Amino acid sequence: MRTLLHMPFDPPSRMVRLVLAEKGLAARLVESPPWKDDPSLAAANPARSIPVLLDAPPTGGEIAVSPALAIAEYLEEAYPVSPLLPATSAGRAEVRRLVWWFEMKFEREVNAVLSRQRIDARLAGRLQYDRAAWLAGCEAMRWHLDYVSWLLENRAWLVGEKMTLADLAAAAHLSVNDYIGAVPWAEFPLVKDWYQSIKCRPAFRPLLAERVEGLPAPSHYADLDF
Amino acid sequence: MRTLLHMPFDPPSRMVRLVLAEKGLAARLVESPPWKDDPSLAAANPARSIPVLLDAPPTGGEIAVSPALAIAEYLEEAYPVSPLLPATSAGRAEVRRLVWWFEMKFEREVNAVLSRQRIDARLAGRLQYDRAAWLAGCEAMRWHLDYVSWLLENRAWLVGEKMTLADLAAAAHLSVNDYIGAVPWAEFPLVKDWYQSIKCRPAFRPLLAERVEGLPAPSHYADLDF
Repeated sequence: MRTLLHMPFDPPSRMVRLVLAEKGLAARLVESPPWKDDPSLAAANPARSIPVLLDAPPTGGEIAVSPALAIAEYLEEAYPVSPLLPATSAGRAEVRRLVWWFEMKFEREVNAVLSRQRIDARLAGRLQYDRAAWLAGCEAMRWHLDYVSWLLENRAWLVGEKMTLADLAAAAHLSVNDYIGAVPWAEFPLVKDWYQSIKCRPAFRPLLAERVEGLPAPSHYADLDF
Repeated sequence: MRTLLHMPFDPPSRMVRLVLAEKGLAARLVESPPWKDDPSLAAANPARSIPVLLDAPPTGGEIAVSPALAIAEYLEEAYPVSPLLPATSAGRAEVRRLVWWFEMKFEREVNAVLSRQRIDARLAGRLQYDRAAWLAGCEAMRWHLDYVSWLLENRAWLVGEKMTLADLAAAAHLSVNDYIGAVPWAEFPLVKDWYQSIKCRPAFRPLLAERVEGLPAPSHYADLDF
């Protein structure tokens, strides 16, 4: 059966789960912490990163796909129902730019010092708190939210009038940091409205139900009318 | 005119130049050092990373595309001549996995401590030499060459019997480190043969002619029969 090696609070893994759900594709979820030396992860992806999708495509054979953007491109090609990439080359280029933006820039400037420190480090048993890094992450978060606001000033979704993979990527990354209360929604009303539209989608429900042991979510986290 | 904001010894920029040349597409090359606070780079790409392609696609309008893999996907869609992605979804997924491999893993483990230190740091005027990091980079380089050898054991090119974007990505990354003599070719004859096939292509010639001031290339660097 279609299987996703993932972690519940890994933003790229969440993006892929949203893509699967939006396309109505079921997948068995297998937790695969990249900080453990797991031979099944290494066999599926020599880079030992998550997520990895194991699938039997409609055209036959078996396939192991990674990283997240390659999985999304693969699912878009193999299962074109509910497309998440625009019809034009320019639109697709803009979606890819923004997915990379979150996978690379937001990951390095925000996740690495906020959610990865608070959640992944706790799960890996090496929790530590660096106040200077945390404050730098919070400042970077505001800068990114400001950029997302700017994008939303003239568009209903990040890349135009339709929801795309760029929205799912952004929402996946924000959701994990929202779990640790690190998203100052009140200061960015446009981003809050946009996030609420995604949060209400059935695809998002399973994500909002997940919890980290010993780390309770803020009350607004799973509230659809926060 | 089609313009590429790039640096001559930036591996992702080199990959895009190879794609343009393989497709027979001319482009004006504009050097745009990401370590300088260049407003034209920020305007073309808010992430301030290179390469950025400015193009007027056949369908009309103007477009600024980044990062490198998104540029390659865009060129493949807009100019399908001389395709560099395989026809199957599985093949395309494998190409994307390997391009990410070099853009992320090889970049972090090898470029960051070898070519970026020796070339970019020199150009940015902040040259420093960290022997421990250099040795770790050389060890990582061997590990990566071993992986490429393994891929080439059963295939003529990295993803099968045809040259793809994965080969151009790998060759671009290796070429920059070859300029500083950091590729132990003699230990990896399969990789050497494969690299020679790419090095001989007309698309590669302009890259081999470039020099860094004050840093001579080893004699084998531009030698097609090294």
